[in-house]
Amino acid sequence: MVRRRPTMRDVAREAGVSQSLVSIVFRDAPGAGEQTRERVLEVARRLGYVRDESARSLRSTRPLSIGVCFRLGRPFHDAVLEGLYRAVAGTPYRLVLSAVSGSRAEEAALDDLEACRCGALLVIGSLLEESELSVRARRIPLVSVARRCDSAEIDWVVSDDEGGMDRAVAHLQGLGHESVTYLSCPGASGGENRERAFRKVAQRLGLVGGAQVRVGGESEEEGVRIAEEMVAAGNVPSAIIASNDSLALGVLGGLLRHGVGVPERVSVIGMDDLKALHRPRVKVTSLCQDTSRLADLAIGRALRRLSPAEGRGTRPRGTILPMSLEVRDTTGPATLGKRPGGA
Amino acid sequence: MVRRRPTMRDVAREAGVSQSLVSIVFRDAPGAGEQTRERVLEVARRLGYVRDESARSLRSTRPLSIGVCFRLGRPFHDAVLEGLYRAVAGTPYRLVLSAVSGSRAEEAALDDLEACRCGALLVIGSLLEESELSVRARRIPLVSVARRCDSAEIDWVVSDDEGGMDRAVAHLQGLGHESVTYLSCPGASGGENRERAFRKVAQRLGLVGGAQVRVGGESEEEGVRIAEEMVAAGNVPSAIIASNDSLALGVLGGLLRHGVGVPERVSVIGMDDLKALHRPRVKVTSLCQDTSRLADLAIGRALRRLSPAEGRGTRPRGTILPMSLEVRDTTGPATLGKRPGGA
Repeated sequence: MVRRRPTMRDVAREAGVSQSLVSIVFRDAPGAGEQTRERVLEVARRLGYVRDESARSLRSTRPLSIGVCFRLGRPFHDAVLEGLYRAVAGTPYRLVLSAVSGSRAEEAALDDLEACRCGALLVIGSLLEESELSVRARRIPLVSVARRCDSAEIDWVVSDDEGGMDRAVAHLQGLGHESVTYLSCPGASGGENRERAFRKVAQRLGLVGGAQVRVGGESEEEGVRIAEEMVAAGNVPSAIIASNDSLALGVLGGLLRHGVGVPERVSVIGMDDLKALHRPRVKVTSLCQDTSRLADLAIGRALRRLSPAEGRGTRPRGTILPMSLEVRDTTGPATLGKRPGGA
Repeated sequence: MVRRRPTMRDVAREAGVSQSLVSIVFRDAPGAGEQTRERVLEVARRLGYVRDESARSLRSTRPLSIGVCFRLGRPFHDAVLEGLYRAVAGTPYRLVLSAVSGSRAEEAALDDLEACRCGALLVIGSLLEESELSVRARRIPLVSVARRCDSAEIDWVVSDDEGGMDRAVAHLQGLGHESVTYLSCPGASGGENRERAFRKVAQRLGLVGGAQVRVGGESEEEGVRIAEEMVAAGNVPSAIIASNDSLALGVLGGLLRHGVGVPERVSVIGMDDLKALHRPRVKVTSLCQDTSRLADLAIGRALRRLSPAEGRGTRPRGTILPMSLEVRDTTGPATLGKRPGGA
């Protein structure tokens, strides 16, 4: 019943190389050409080779785990995790996950990863003070995903909120909208950054008088509440950008329930939570982060830190990836003769 | 800037015991009374004591990690994870997570956990053949959460689908519903078990002629499609039990969109995905699994396997927990003069 596990010897035979070359590849040591390296890793993956860490960790001093700290119940985090698993496949490294949730602090999640001897940490959407991240980054290489860091210790990969916002506002202007209300999300990772981006873009694109910022939130419930307040106050803007898709879905639902047509009367744009958009018949126009590329780059950064050649001393790298505006069903031409809200 | 980490000495001083007693407690070795044990663990948790595994793992042969295999993007799995973190807090163990997703097989997720030297594995809603789980359970203690196992190697903790179904059907009968359609979910972990439970309960409660089983699915989209097919065929039952809450939400949305009142015309009951129910204004009646108790028991099983006293040799334990029926807004009295579906 017990299937025999493939050994390093099996990998060597199948790849047509010596066992010591396989070992070199797995240890990421110098001596293997790029093509050989890739062939060995491909064969190892195909055969389902699993390193026996119980023996190995006693021999090697180099940890083979990359720790990932993520938040439970966030579609964006789940999408990044999917990407990280794809990016790490075929490398000698494996991911070890630790979750943050309502009842579990980010510090505790990171402590667990450090206690696990991870070689590097990836932190998705951190809400910690940057100084706290820096302290950890001095002990262990740390890559911040979806949260920009200015310290000299931390690599980071984020999406270009400002460029994305530019695209969103320009799209609305192109449809004739002269006023846009931005619904913020103060508590979220990157929330301030997005709000600042909106203000800058609104100014740059000449939307000054027609740009409003209103405190939003992270949940659909908050979106519904805001939409209903707008309707009740007879103050429904012609276009809304919500700082996340849950909020956008709530706004959409709240407006539709009160007979305010989307996009006939109001255009709505969301941000981020790709999967939250998969609601039957509701296709929200949204600014999307490229979770695959964020993940690829994050793994690349971690591997660079873990490589004996480059190692730790080098300066950290930050990368800003473009966001795409996915135009779907919730944005359309501005109504010229504006009816009072709620009509 | 670097906060000093609390040491074992700090824990000993704060708990008023010797360092060797603290060490005994952390190693789960004999020699500490239950009260002392609890005090030490409480102090360790309060001080935020983190074992330095890089030193420790070289000294100790006993791993301190419990591996958890879960599925990304499933609210039920997220809820169990929350419970597991709470249950493991204050023990000397930490959780190491590994995710299953569309692009990552359960086998790969489990391989990673084994390679990490986890002392035990917890597998949430496994979809593997039981024989595959058994093979692993012979190498490393394995607790199956939300999936019953009959092999002699595997501990398991599940919810009582049959008792829950009994409650759901009896609730509907009490409201005067004489026919109930069950929407199945063939691919899901436990899907067959739930369908079997419905058939048994329908027979036991004398619903034989009025019990229908229809193939459902796992997504809201599928729920919408089924509701629309029912409406188009003029064949809308008076009560529906959906094997999961996403499906129930889809059915609900599909019916409401076509003017079929819930619960005025149709009663709808969902199962499981607690958080999927948190949609504004929609409170679906649902059979709920007690994720906290599932988690507590699962950790308890794992700790028992890891304890030097009881260890591995003992017979595995299976536990079936009751499910609660949370009656909310989507169930109501059966309409006596039934209108044709779609009216």
